[in-house]
Amino acid sequence: VSIPLEAAREAVDAALAHAGELGVDAAVTVVDQGGHVVTMSRMDAAAILTVRMSADKAYTSAVTRMPTADWHPLVQPGQSLFGLTSAEAGRIITFGGGLPLEGEAGVVGAIGVAGGSVDQDVAIAEAGRRAWRPAWTGA
Amino acid sequence: VSIPLEAAREAVDAALAHAGELGVDAAVTVVDQGGHVVTMSRMDAAAILTVRMSADKAYTSAVTRMPTADWHPLVQPGQSLFGLTSAEAGRIITFGGGLPLEGEAGVVGAIGVAGGSVDQDVAIAEAGRRAWRPAWTGA
Amino acid sequence: VSIPLEAAREAVDAALAHAGELGVDAAVTVVDQGGHVVTMSRMDAAAILTVRMSADKAYTSAVTRMPTADWHPLVQPGQSLFGLTSAEAGRIITFGGGLPLEGEAGVVGAIGVAGGSVDQDVAIAEAGRRAWRPAWTGA
Amino acid sequence: VSIPLEAAREAVDAALAHAGELGVDAAVTVVDQGGHVVTMSRMDAAAILTVRMSADKAYTSAVTRMPTADWHPLVQPGQSLFGLTSAEAGRIITFGGGLPLEGEAGVVGAIGVAGGSVDQDVAIAEAGRRAWRPAWTGA
Repeated sequence: VSIPLEAAREAVDAALAHAGELGVDAAVTVVDQGGHVVTMSRMDAAAILTVRMSADKAYTSAVTRMPTADWHPLVQPGQSLFGLTSAEAGRIITFGGGLPLEGEAGVVGAIGVAGGSVDQDVAIAEAGRRAWRPAWTGA
Repeated sequence: VSIPLEAAREAVDAALAHAGELGVDAAVTVVDQGGHVVTMSRMDAAAILTVRMSADKAYTSAVTRMPTADWHPLVQPGQSLFGLTSAEAGRIITFGGGLPLEGEAGVVGAIGVAGGSVDQDVAIAEAGRRAWRPAWTGA
Repeated sequence: VSIPLEAAREAVDAALAHAGELGVDAAVTVVDQGGHVVTMSRMDAAAILTVRMSADKAYTSAVTRMPTADWHPLVQPGQSLFGLTSAEAGRIITFGGGLPLEGEAGVVGAIGVAGGSVDQDVAIAEAGRRAWRPAWTGA
Repeated sequence: VSIPLEAAREAVDAALAHAGELGVDAAVTVVDQGGHVVTMSRMDAAAILTVRMSADKAYTSAVTRMPTADWHPLVQPGQSLFGLTSAEAGRIITFGGGLPLEGEAGVVGAIGVAGGSVDQDVAIAEAGRRAWRPAWTGA
């Protein structure tokens, strides 16, 4: 496993805490390098769809090694990757809320957030990623 | 089950009756809080696709706790959630015809309609929702 | 549509009534000749799995034009159709509870029941089929 | 949500602690009444398959309201439910490791464990369920 459960949990908890500050009911998932779930949690009032969306945002970010938001302009009508949104039976999510998690040797996993607006989901994912770094590096 | 079968049937029957008044051949599905079907019926002349579309509209409305129509502007090209239409292998429907059903504690299920134009499907779903409320509350 | 909604509903209601007599919490589905749902209802205390199981029993019976129970001996280890249970991603159900519904020109649909033991499900499906025949033939 | 995140986490943590005592590398998932994930965690050395297996055991237990182990004798060759293992595209798991979680009004969710032998998975799930009860009832 590329991301220890303990570090993944700290990232999820930091993300959930920030969601609470923003008043957003969210689900947060951390996946490993292969896009497989390490840990996920859904807040009590979060909609059911957030489970799958947070997991698929994390998956997309892990298997592409990019923030999900970076794909958004490229998949628009007429753009080079139009149609990518349907790939892998809809598991590829191309709007914000998924961020890669990096270790010394590059991308080792990703975090995905769903439940708020895209901007809120990105902010929550960033809070999770900030908490993960020191846990990983021991700083 | 978050929605009793008897109340769900009254909602479906009211929706089918309104479909008949509008001259629309429709299918109507009621799902519970988790998006699982409680009851569904398809009118004799309704197209086969209406089965799945009514179920998926109800599913989408239950797992997002929103009318399906509310997602429509957000998923257009260039908008923040462009690509959401492909999520969950295409079960997420982002045009009108799905409405949440509310109980005392919030959303307890949803109704989905397919078979007519979007405006007709919305009107039929609203007729179903109106009939469900008194059945649920005992009014 | 090969089965009118009104006749399908009478079959479902008769099946649900018999389930109640047996003290079984069941779901009942009627599908048309193509295996597509005409109507389905789930009793309040029926497990969620009954939704899909009743629909897949009806589907199997419609697309094979046989009672689902008839396949049971043929799919056992060493028998000629061992492995059929996995066909169509698991939609083919090879134990009792699905029965074809016949019209003048042969099989026009099927009824599927889930929620009790196999014997109970078969008995409930038979109750549904008995109610459907007069509705269909006008007897 | 039928199971609060905090209570679900306590169940998962208790299960993971017992897995550690047994020397088993496991994944543990808690789902709500509808089978949708509330929280899941995978231990660092657990195989990737444990993610899906723990989730599907929890799902099976929620949608059938039974321990997954109870289905095991019924699905053997020649038995009444032979073939059930393929239902719902293989999400139905019929050996031990999934247990329903009960509230005042009956089954409100389930816990699923994968990673050890079946006996170990059952023991770990039971440890999780024991921890969840007081959290739920406030005892």
